[in-house]
Amino acid sequence: MLGPRGPGRHRRASVLSRIISSTANERLKRLRRLRKRRDRDDAGVFLIEGYREVKRAFEAGVAIEEVYVSPALFLGQNEPALIAALGAPTHEVAPEPFASVATRDRPDGLLAVARQFDTSLSADRLDVASGPALILVAEGAERPGNLGSMIRTAAGAGVTAVIAAEPQTDVFAPEVVRASVGTLFAQPVAVASSAETLAFLRAHAVGVVTASPAGEQDYWDVDLAASVAVVVGSEQHGVTPLWLDQADVVVRIPMAGVDSVNVAAAAAVLLFDAVRQRAARPQA
Amino acid sequence: MLGPRGPGRHRRASVLSRIISSTANERLKRLRRLRKRRDRDDAGVFLIEGYREVKRAFEAGVAIEEVYVSPALFLGQNEPALIAALGAPTHEVAPEPFASVATRDRPDGLLAVARQFDTSLSADRLDVASGPALILVAEGAERPGNLGSMIRTAAGAGVTAVIAAEPQTDVFAPEVVRASVGTLFAQPVAVASSAETLAFLRAHAVGVVTASPAGEQDYWDVDLAASVAVVVGSEQHGVTPLWLDQADVVVRIPMAGVDSVNVAAAAAVLLFDAVRQRAARPQA
Repeated sequence: MLGPRGPGRHRRASVLSRIISSTANERLKRLRRLRKRRDRDDAGVFLIEGYREVKRAFEAGVAIEEVYVSPALFLGQNEPALIAALGAPTHEVAPEPFASVATRDRPDGLLAVARQFDTSLSADRLDVASGPALILVAEGAERPGNLGSMIRTAAGAGVTAVIAAEPQTDVFAPEVVRASVGTLFAQPVAVASSAETLAFLRAHAVGVVTASPAGEQDYWDVDLAASVAVVVGSEQHGVTPLWLDQADVVVRIPMAGVDSVNVAAAAAVLLFDAVRQRAARPQA
Repeated sequence: MLGPRGPGRHRRASVLSRIISSTANERLKRLRRLRKRRDRDDAGVFLIEGYREVKRAFEAGVAIEEVYVSPALFLGQNEPALIAALGAPTHEVAPEPFASVATRDRPDGLLAVARQFDTSLSADRLDVASGPALILVAEGAERPGNLGSMIRTAAGAGVTAVIAAEPQTDVFAPEVVRASVGTLFAQPVAVASSAETLAFLRAHAVGVVTASPAGEQDYWDVDLAASVAVVVGSEQHGVTPLWLDQADVVVRIPMAGVDSVNVAAAAAVLLFDAVRQRAARPQA
């Protein structure tokens, strides 16, 4: 739609001239449909909302197919440069109809349609060989916000990869992208069955450290500086028996008794204890 | 409305006979209004949704004024016994209108109206003297879900108290109750200004450990087994300068570089490192 691509990839992108001013616009209707997993999967695309998120996607090489912008909603000065760098067909939308396609309370005027990328579980994508691996396995994640938050925490902890095992949400849900603040694009994220995940870990000699209230060892007493996968289960049911039976060690997070913590908080505690242990015992 | 209270506090509560079958019912309209802070504060009440949450409120002595039930939505067997124990006027609601007052996707048929309780910052409520205190100070919390998650994590870590300093949400928001899974009721939670909070900590000789990307010490190198308050800031802006200037120590959570973690994840990492340190160096 922009005509032949010239060498000026970083030229200012053409903003298509007609401003979309109605929520009933067919393009906006399509964007709203893409909130549903089925429509996302049928089209092979997903939504990325927000400046930080779109920027991270661009930096990671995610294929951006279209951009929707509402300049009156921009929060900073850098949006035009990012939009130009994206080099994708760009549609301007008036603030009110833009809000109808935004999923956040205070939209920042930037929404991209991107191609879904490879989330297969392969050693090509997940480089587990180049040092002691630290992998987060999130099994049966129910809430996209929790999965996104875990992906963000994992990025902060510098994991080798995140594996979503049998998630009840898909990683391309808008809430996952949002809660991850775009770190979904900044590290390898794979989706697989629990059995495939276990086989992959075994094949690459990655230890399995399962978190469960049934654990008999406190997490800080376990070596998390070795090549390990930390496995957390669903908010409601915890991990499936596979991960209890096949774990090298089942650890608990000792509680003062009132409650188990949220699964994203549990993942944060375990991953950053691995960071702490690795800092204390640096590898050669 | 139930007539004089007899000795049978644990008798089966009278369920008022007329089942509410319309979403336009005036009582249900009032419940929906109570989602708004202003209406909550005007009435001095708040909403508690869900079996676990109502149970924790009851066990903690929170004053329950009214109960709304939709038995077709109950997930377990214990709801009638809990409802009876509450001894409050109880209204039965058909599933569809119940869903109109519920704030969760899958309502479990139990919703209570409770009296707001004391959240003042006082040594009477916050027992900081009976051992090395561990206090979570959450300054400027923006999202009720984050605040609720931090309260839950704090309960898991067995803190002395949670102080919400200048929150941008109120602790009686339905999303706080929900994300806390009712642990809001299980520990002292106070709301105060940052200046009042700092004065309180100083008056009780509680050390101030502020978390910030500007910190020069890794959190694990700081003594969190002493009497300390861990201070985290808002998701967007971090802590205010007061907490950087007045801190006994400013700590960072070392990042692999991609992002700062979500504030609730940061609180979990810090509080559970305090748990770890205290387990390693138990007090006499």
